[in-house]
Amino acid sequence: MNYAIILYTLGFVIDFSAAFMIPPFLVAMLYGESDAKYFLVCFAICVVLGVLLGGIKPENKKFYAREGYITVALSWIIISLIGALPFYLSGYIPSYIDALFETISGFTTTGASILTDVEALSHGMLFWRSFTHWIGGMGVLVFILAILPLAGGENMHLMKAESPGPSVGKLVPKLRKTAFYLYAIYFIMTIVEIVLLLIFKMPLFDAVCISMGTAGTGGFGILNTSLGSYSRAIKTIVTIFMLLFGVNFSFYFLIVMRKFKDAFKMSEVRWYFAIFAFVSLVIAFNVTSVSGSFIENLYESTFAVSSVMTTTGFSTVDFNKWPELSRILLVIIMFSGACAGSTGGGIKISRLIIYFKSTLKELSSLTHPRSVKVINIDGKPVERSVLNSAMIFLIAYVFIYVVSVVIVSLDNFDLITTFTAVAATFNNIGPGLELVGPTGNFSMFSPLSKIVLIFDMLAGRLEIFPMLLLFTPSVWKKH
Amino acid sequence: MNYAIILYTLGFVIDFSAAFMIPPFLVAMLYGESDAKYFLVCFAICVVLGVLLGGIKPENKKFYAREGYITVALSWIIISLIGALPFYLSGYIPSYIDALFETISGFTTTGASILTDVEALSHGMLFWRSFTHWIGGMGVLVFILAILPLAGGENMHLMKAESPGPSVGKLVPKLRKTAFYLYAIYFIMTIVEIVLLLIFKMPLFDAVCISMGTAGTGGFGILNTSLGSYSRAIKTIVTIFMLLFGVNFSFYFLIVMRKFKDAFKMSEVRWYFAIFAFVSLVIAFNVTSVSGSFIENLYESTFAVSSVMTTTGFSTVDFNKWPELSRILLVIIMFSGACAGSTGGGIKISRLIIYFKSTLKELSSLTHPRSVKVINIDGKPVERSVLNSAMIFLIAYVFIYVVSVVIVSLDNFDLITTFTAVAATFNNIGPGLELVGPTGNFSMFSPLSKIVLIFDMLAGRLEIFPMLLLFTPSVWKKH
Repeated sequence: MNYAIILYTLGFVIDFSAAFMIPPFLVAMLYGESDAKYFLVCFAICVVLGVLLGGIKPENKKFYAREGYITVALSWIIISLIGALPFYLSGYIPSYIDALFETISGFTTTGASILTDVEALSHGMLFWRSFTHWIGGMGVLVFILAILPLAGGENMHLMKAESPGPSVGKLVPKLRKTAFYLYAIYFIMTIVEIVLLLIFKMPLFDAVCISMGTAGTGGFGILNTSLGSYSRAIKTIVTIFMLLFGVNFSFYFLIVMRKFKDAFKMSEVRWYFAIFAFVSLVIAFNVTSVSGSFIENLYESTFAVSSVMTTTGFSTVDFNKWPELSRILLVIIMFSGACAGSTGGGIKISRLIIYFKSTLKELSSLTHPRSVKVINIDGKPVERSVLNSAMIFLIAYVFIYVVSVVIVSLDNFDLITTFTAVAATFNNIGPGLELVGPTGNFSMFSPLSKIVLIFDMLAGRLEIFPMLLLFTPSVWKKH
Repeated sequence: MNYAIILYTLGFVIDFSAAFMIPPFLVAMLYGESDAKYFLVCFAICVVLGVLLGGIKPENKKFYAREGYITVALSWIIISLIGALPFYLSGYIPSYIDALFETISGFTTTGASILTDVEALSHGMLFWRSFTHWIGGMGVLVFILAILPLAGGENMHLMKAESPGPSVGKLVPKLRKTAFYLYAIYFIMTIVEIVLLLIFKMPLFDAVCISMGTAGTGGFGILNTSLGSYSRAIKTIVTIFMLLFGVNFSFYFLIVMRKFKDAFKMSEVRWYFAIFAFVSLVIAFNVTSVSGSFIENLYESTFAVSSVMTTTGFSTVDFNKWPELSRILLVIIMFSGACAGSTGGGIKISRLIIYFKSTLKELSSLTHPRSVKVINIDGKPVERSVLNSAMIFLIAYVFIYVVSVVIVSLDNFDLITTFTAVAATFNNIGPGLELVGPTGNFSMFSPLSKIVLIFDMLAGRLEIFPMLLLFTPSVWKKH
């Protein structure tokens, strides 16, 4: 392990992160809030720490995959540790663990909150909370990559460790250019959403915060009712944009490159919309069997499905009160998640496609032992190593899930609360069911449980392996 | 697909199954019960159907893996369809679906019951119920293989499809001899348990039924309180024998072959006992924190852990009322299950070892990309195809689990009932939590849910693939 280059790169990242403090500082100033000073303090901490670490001159410039994974994991942790300070210093969140939980929930685009009254926060703090979603959505490091001229190989290792989904295949060549395009798409889509929300009479501050929360598929609201009290038009716009931000960004990239045929051939995107439509309809029917009109329930179910499947986590109604079939379908799409290469979390549709095709292949090889079938996705064979990694992902996913549930169950809340609290954080969604349902929050958990859920949020966002490697002794050997 | 040879083999199996009706017939006669006639009816049906099918003379004697899987799946289904008749004809279980549920629960050694009052059954019926466990434990077909002289290759395909666990490796050569030894061990261990129970003053009828239920890791009791009302000594004997029947029978086979070193090197067996001890202790501490003395609770927790982990499903206390940590640990060992090559269900310890080692290997290859490490278990490399099959097993397992939960949730029982009802049947355990907890039963589910749970019991017992192949169109092509 090349410690020097890791610290050096971390210095870079932290230095850059200072810039993140400027927008919330400006917002706080604009509203004449005294909280502005806390963002200045964090700005200063970033700069000083960054310069100190940047002073380390690595003799050995070698930067391999394992340095990449560790750098990514540590970057996210350090940025969160600093990012939690405004909440803590201002006294809005008196416990530092809680402030860290809220910040990591923001950066990982989870949207699970320990706050019981978000409306008590100042504009600066509310903006910072939503801004963390927007930063975290596309990845802190890809963000930096898009702008900073780092040398060759390391970029790819960083991007690979940070990008959601089984493969960054298509986009890897010409990394900087790609990162630039991705950010441009992300930025423009966010602006379009803000403008549309403004047209439908949402106040500017709300429109900016909600759009950032949608873009990152985060889910922090700025009202205690989340999105429940906005107009139908606004909810519909948010439904559509949640869905759009859950699409694999390769799709938009291909559209921008005018490769329409390749774009519409992407089976992941087609499955994504098909699952969305199917589950929304079933839930609408199921809820209608209990109460309300079908059209009304379809509005609510498309919103909830889009929110949960893209792992955003905004809410309009308390889906915790829906019948069991609907609740179970919501729990299932909590796990499926959105497309790879989107800002959403979860297992990802493309992995599910790999799992499904692998199973069919195994069934066919059981009965025709000599048939060697390769799995194709979008007409291209899937490499052995990608398959293997997708399988191990599932195993590691289940392991972490099970261990987390065991530790959180020490708090002795009911099984469904425990089970969905882990699901909602590990899949970066936000709300679960029962006590952590749309009208609940995460404040009642013990510090131990909160630390476990923090780990889960990070493991979910970074797709497990970087966080697991942090705890793998052999990685830390100096050779 | 060679339909003729499948039908011919089925005829063989059904003919032989007639013999299964003799012991319950004798028991019913002994107690002077009029139910004896129903066993005679089934005996006749088996003989006639068997002779009819046996009349088919296959021109092509080729018997490949796919014929093996389909024959196994169909055998289990047909034997169960016939085996349900005594319950149905006698009127003890007025619904045929319920009678089928009870019978499949017996053959698959699940032990989930739709009966609200088992004590109302006659001795003949109670014996038949427990006897299905004993038959199902070691596998109907291996049973037949041990005795009947079938030709070469097909035996192995049948045994492979029916044996629990990722590989029957060690035992495959000299199949008939092996099957004979396995049955001898199974038989002797059952007798020893009966004798021990008699020594501790259990009535003979009870001792035979409970021992058959233990041997098959089934779990049907003959009293409404399951094992709750027996003495401590009897419960302790049952605890020990449940544990022993959850051990990989290769272990006993090696002991009999005097290969003690190989036997004690089996990591699966060591992990099995380690997990048992660890979970029992944690639950005992956890329950003691709420009520009772540690020693008392340790008695109950060893019984419950042994019962759930081996997927037997006997109960002494209502563990549904234990604190959340204990309940969650029980749910987890519902899934882990016992050793491969035992009579228990679940995912199996040996697969968990494979999953764990594969994950470590992947983590190490992420950081040292050029290291090609082979996974070793008990000093031997695990073949690529075994690894792959274990991974696909997990995927198929999750798929079936999720689909089952969705369908069962249509009944709109609470999430935990739905979730653990599927877990308890798919892993062949018996009781779950809440409404299907130790004091509950499965009678309230809709016929649709019962059919799904029947499928799950069969899929669990036959380790998924034979049942999935039944629904794979390409298998049925005639070529």
